[in-house]
Amino acid sequence: MTRIRLGMVGGGNDAFIGGVHRIASRIDGHFDLVAGALSSTPEKARASAETLGLDPSRSYGSFEEMAEAEAAREDGIEAVSIVTPNHVHFPAAQAFLSRGIHVICDKPLTATFEDAEAMEKAVAESQALFILTHNYTGYPMIRQARQMVAEGALGKIRLVQAEYPQDWLTDAVETEGVKQAEWRTDPERSGAGGSIGDIGTHAYNLACFVSGLTGEELAADLQSFGAGRKLDDNAHILLRYEGGARGMLWCSQVAPGNENGLRLRIYGEKGGLEWAQEDPNYLWFTPHGEPTRRLTRNGPGAIEASTSVSRIPAGHPEGYLEGFATIYTEAAEAIRAVQGGQSREAVMGVLPGIGAGLDGMAFIRACVASAGDNAAWTKL
Amino acid sequence: MTRIRLGMVGGGNDAFIGGVHRIASRIDGHFDLVAGALSSTPEKARASAETLGLDPSRSYGSFEEMAEAEAAREDGIEAVSIVTPNHVHFPAAQAFLSRGIHVICDKPLTATFEDAEAMEKAVAESQALFILTHNYTGYPMIRQARQMVAEGALGKIRLVQAEYPQDWLTDAVETEGVKQAEWRTDPERSGAGGSIGDIGTHAYNLACFVSGLTGEELAADLQSFGAGRKLDDNAHILLRYEGGARGMLWCSQVAPGNENGLRLRIYGEKGGLEWAQEDPNYLWFTPHGEPTRRLTRNGPGAIEASTSVSRIPAGHPEGYLEGFATIYTEAAEAIRAVQGGQSREAVMGVLPGIGAGLDGMAFIRACVASAGDNAAWTKL
Amino acid sequence: MTRIRLGMVGGGNDAFIGGVHRIASRIDGHFDLVAGALSSTPEKARASAETLGLDPSRSYGSFEEMAEAEAAREDGIEAVSIVTPNHVHFPAAQAFLSRGIHVICDKPLTATFEDAEAMEKAVAESQALFILTHNYTGYPMIRQARQMVAEGALGKIRLVQAEYPQDWLTDAVETEGVKQAEWRTDPERSGAGGSIGDIGTHAYNLACFVSGLTGEELAADLQSFGAGRKLDDNAHILLRYEGGARGMLWCSQVAPGNENGLRLRIYGEKGGLEWAQEDPNYLWFTPHGEPTRRLTRNGPGAIEASTSVSRIPAGHPEGYLEGFATIYTEAAEAIRAVQGGQSREAVMGVLPGIGAGLDGMAFIRACVASAGDNAAWTKL
Amino acid sequence: MTRIRLGMVGGGNDAFIGGVHRIASRIDGHFDLVAGALSSTPEKARASAETLGLDPSRSYGSFEEMAEAEAAREDGIEAVSIVTPNHVHFPAAQAFLSRGIHVICDKPLTATFEDAEAMEKAVAESQALFILTHNYTGYPMIRQARQMVAEGALGKIRLVQAEYPQDWLTDAVETEGVKQAEWRTDPERSGAGGSIGDIGTHAYNLACFVSGLTGEELAADLQSFGAGRKLDDNAHILLRYEGGARGMLWCSQVAPGNENGLRLRIYGEKGGLEWAQEDPNYLWFTPHGEPTRRLTRNGPGAIEASTSVSRIPAGHPEGYLEGFATIYTEAAEAIRAVQGGQSREAVMGVLPGIGAGLDGMAFIRACVASAGDNAAWTKL
Repeated sequence: MTRIRLGMVGGGNDAFIGGVHRIASRIDGHFDLVAGALSSTPEKARASAETLGLDPSRSYGSFEEMAEAEAAREDGIEAVSIVTPNHVHFPAAQAFLSRGIHVICDKPLTATFEDAEAMEKAVAESQALFILTHNYTGYPMIRQARQMVAEGALGKIRLVQAEYPQDWLTDAVETEGVKQAEWRTDPERSGAGGSIGDIGTHAYNLACFVSGLTGEELAADLQSFGAGRKLDDNAHILLRYEGGARGMLWCSQVAPGNENGLRLRIYGEKGGLEWAQEDPNYLWFTPHGEPTRRLTRNGPGAIEASTSVSRIPAGHPEGYLEGFATIYTEAAEAIRAVQGGQSREAVMGVLPGIGAGLDGMAFIRACVASAGDNAAWTKL
Repeated sequence: MTRIRLGMVGGGNDAFIGGVHRIASRIDGHFDLVAGALSSTPEKARASAETLGLDPSRSYGSFEEMAEAEAAREDGIEAVSIVTPNHVHFPAAQAFLSRGIHVICDKPLTATFEDAEAMEKAVAESQALFILTHNYTGYPMIRQARQMVAEGALGKIRLVQAEYPQDWLTDAVETEGVKQAEWRTDPERSGAGGSIGDIGTHAYNLACFVSGLTGEELAADLQSFGAGRKLDDNAHILLRYEGGARGMLWCSQVAPGNENGLRLRIYGEKGGLEWAQEDPNYLWFTPHGEPTRRLTRNGPGAIEASTSVSRIPAGHPEGYLEGFATIYTEAAEAIRAVQGGQSREAVMGVLPGIGAGLDGMAFIRACVASAGDNAAWTKL
Repeated sequence: MTRIRLGMVGGGNDAFIGGVHRIASRIDGHFDLVAGALSSTPEKARASAETLGLDPSRSYGSFEEMAEAEAAREDGIEAVSIVTPNHVHFPAAQAFLSRGIHVICDKPLTATFEDAEAMEKAVAESQALFILTHNYTGYPMIRQARQMVAEGALGKIRLVQAEYPQDWLTDAVETEGVKQAEWRTDPERSGAGGSIGDIGTHAYNLACFVSGLTGEELAADLQSFGAGRKLDDNAHILLRYEGGARGMLWCSQVAPGNENGLRLRIYGEKGGLEWAQEDPNYLWFTPHGEPTRRLTRNGPGAIEASTSVSRIPAGHPEGYLEGFATIYTEAAEAIRAVQGGQSREAVMGVLPGIGAGLDGMAFIRACVASAGDNAAWTKL
Repeated sequence: MTRIRLGMVGGGNDAFIGGVHRIASRIDGHFDLVAGALSSTPEKARASAETLGLDPSRSYGSFEEMAEAEAAREDGIEAVSIVTPNHVHFPAAQAFLSRGIHVICDKPLTATFEDAEAMEKAVAESQALFILTHNYTGYPMIRQARQMVAEGALGKIRLVQAEYPQDWLTDAVETEGVKQAEWRTDPERSGAGGSIGDIGTHAYNLACFVSGLTGEELAADLQSFGAGRKLDDNAHILLRYEGGARGMLWCSQVAPGNENGLRLRIYGEKGGLEWAQEDPNYLWFTPHGEPTRRLTRNGPGAIEASTSVSRIPAGHPEGYLEGFATIYTEAAEAIRAVQGGQSREAVMGVLPGIGAGLDGMAFIRACVASAGDNAAWTKL
């Protein structure tokens, strides 16, 4: 099985998420990183490429240059990971999609809704795959939860309680030289959403992914507690889903003691499910009127939906990187399938793509609009 | 130390909360139950009195009869516990307050807002104490949390996340002969609030008690999932507190796997606190930027606010009944202080009284009004 | 139902366990404390009696005086609680047993094995009941565990892992005026066992109570880590039970971070059970090959063995005092049954009595003997 | 940075641990797997090599063949992973060590003590590195614990409580075609230790690694509960460490509900530490007399010892594979350092090597000897 040749846009030495993508691409051995435009600063790009052992001739100063050069090579990249701040997602993706190079792109889809619509068009006009790394959908117990809901283990869904608290923006660290905080609190680079874009979209995506429901409307109260902060760092949201289910979504970057507290609880007429990202190998399942069961990854009660994306036995914890790697592995399988002649539509499976990206952008837009109208109900 | 002579209205053999009040009144040995109007059915009242070993001559057929007779006795009751469905709270309390007998009353204050205002008047016109059993305020670690917030351990409060999920009304058990469910889902006996009255008021009371904040306005989305159910069994609420803090409150009786999941999380500029009723001997405290500490009842880090209402050493769990007993014990101390000549205002300490009761009724009223206006913001 | 008249030996104002017994005796309302020899110091005895509201004429200077006087009264005590240091258990119990007064006695049974044998004789020669407060057997989920094991839910038992770590003797606090530490580390008052007597007997009792097994032999490595400490403060013990089951028992008073960490895990051919005293409302049950279930007190899956000793609904935590109260309540029922003419043997049910006490003394003796012989196997 | 050329012995398609080693070798990108003798069955070896995308010419039928051929190639492997059943460890390692090829070998060191001594000699006579994958030492919070103990955070160590329960051999699955069970319960392939070799060595290694202590003697009670099982499947062990610390070690493969329950608790004069493999991102630290702290990987309180082997931020769980990968990454760094001219002794850092392997074998030997002498104390 030969590896897929991968390029990367962004992800220089001081970026967090670039390293995550690289590890994720390596875990199951389906990709070789062979090219990069790793930084908007040429020097940094060079240094990063060297650290990574890239052939210097394939370390590019810009994504445009890289797209053009790699498309021209016989052994050019087959896929590219885009791990830049949000405002670069669209132009970078377009450069590769238009040349038939598959795109694996970080979330949220884009910084603006206009870019999102342009992205949709670019995807439509390309034959290449577009995969959005809503990585939390790759956790085995999330796959199991989704399948259990789909099979009716909870009955008709009534409630979807999602939350995603963090604490890293409790102080105004964006004014103290923390790079991750700088661009994430800057509307120019992040877009209209602060916490709602960075983590709220993950929570909303996961709520829909597991419940199988579509959001209908929401009422959002957004706050910016950090001194001088331009974007929201906390959001309290009421949600109404199609079919009558109701939900709440809380995301925060100012809740001390919460590191990465993504948590999902879903309740239906017949049972409930609870899952927490920080302890991802457990899924708590209560058939109504019976004792709660602790389902474990690859343990008793695990079903194919989870065991098929699990690498090691129960009790040997898999984590964030493995869930992320599953997205890469399924991307590799989809890319090979398309290369083997299958239609793009047939190969995506549960992989998040342009649709999930647009849903996320609609979520951000609705939150901002609702908050601007005193938390009035706003259609998604 | 002689015991305070106590009567009880409601709390017959098949009532849950009556037994709780009786145990709570006994734990610290400050009360003797000597009289009762234990049921609206005379036969049941007699049977219950017999089980409890009451003097048959002090088992009454109605609270009016009891109030009159006991007030006339030299050794009549000094205080009465009212543990009936909500719609009886006001008439019963009035009968005793008007005769100078101290009242310990279950929550919510009354079934209707009109009754609540009448109750306020009855309390004002009496010399007797009125204590509302918002029992969760009696938990030692809740006392500690309140004190820590008051002393600034969290800095200025930003977020108050309260939730209270249960699952016992997942099915429409009120149609299957479950007495507790029957009156709690009946507007005639419960009032305008279902879950918001029964448990939402507890969560809101606790949020205010610990945070020291006053709610300003709320937006509430109420649902009745149970088939044919007339009152809400789930509520999703956004809250705005005075001073700029924001919060959410979720209460539910239809969330399978949740038995009595009252939980409070408070975050400020300098730290966070988390507490869960089902594991009440722990308080999780995070000074921002430091590791989270597990504070335990009577353990290292416990302060006088909690140790003074704690009976046994750390590691020996106290529970729901002990927290409830603390309300009774503080009621006894207040009663003795008033009997000793102190003013009613001087003796209440942190005991919940008519004010907390009115706050709860305002909460219910605002929830219902907001929900009737599509979750519009409504003043508290 | 009239209350049983109770006396108390020991349990003055500064004693921990006396207060626990008093609360336990009150919770379910079966006893009235009417007499006491609360301290070996007459002044303290008087002061304590006053605090408790005892009739001064029934506050005695010694247990002998109390036994004689109360036995002579028509309204004399029917039962007595003995809550002194261990070396007083036997003489005090004998004084009451010989007069037909029922005895509720703290554990371990006595300070010496000679006293234990004398106690056995005293019990045999009396008509009165003798109840030993191995209070942890009163926890509802312990009762449920015992019943599940008895009914074969685990199959044949293979392993019994018991542990009871604490940390309060990490430093040599007995030299710093901590009264609880003084007598517990003094061979004259405690007997030959330090941690093994104070808490090891609890763990061993619980292991046998739940598993239904009898210990056959043990190998014990005892340590005294505290500077100058005469008795063990840590014990590592291997156990062999009749029928081939094996176990370990660890008790410690020098394990920082452990408050009262009694924990029991039992494994058989068909399943496993886990329970921890600090979170006593949960019982974790794994039928082999199936997901682990979280059984809760009074929740789904609760059986009569636990619900019958449970006071309030699931999710409303009961704790240490309630478990202790169950011993008192069952003692009251046994006393009334004997008073009603039933035979002493017929009324004890699962209540720990002289047999459990002797088992505990045999455990201490075997531990000390084994440790003295370099942890050689020693018959129980 | 070019990758190190790696070969593998064992680890064919149906082996669990081979896949783990491969993922671990890829995560940080330091190795390329280029050759293999993946199975003792040539057909399986070929099929496995094909699945892995190995050049067919470098898929060998035996480790001898591979060692000879690869040593002869200019681009031959620089290191080899040995992931066979235990009895093959020595002959395979010798074949590579004698040719100067670095060896990364699974534990326990060998099947017999004779082989272990031969292995020691082979390592001594080679210039190549020998690394034993005691992978649990690679967990960040284990590194932090070790460093904290070394710096005196606990004071002088008194107690080391280690346990490692599993449940997968509860039934005699080795008779039902479960390959992992077959060789692990076969003395020919596993050696004299069953559970003590497979998992007990891990627990003992971790206890010593974190505490910094050396075991002096032990008393072991071994059992074989599985029907017809020849090796121990449960072990209860008392331990005495140099300097006066005492400990217990329990390992089991027959404890239903335990998946991979490796857990370590260490207590000293000044504090305690607790860690559990199934929730590896947390370390619970109690300075005596202060509240327990929950230290998290890369969170507040994390020190260089843990952050340096951590890949992603706090709250994003790393797991078993990442800990394993750290061993591989440090092996890569050691290999490069040796290739760069440093002495073998200078580059091992905390990596487990032949010494740790011999300690493990001594542990197995002492356990078996002690158990054969009715759990008599036996020198390590």
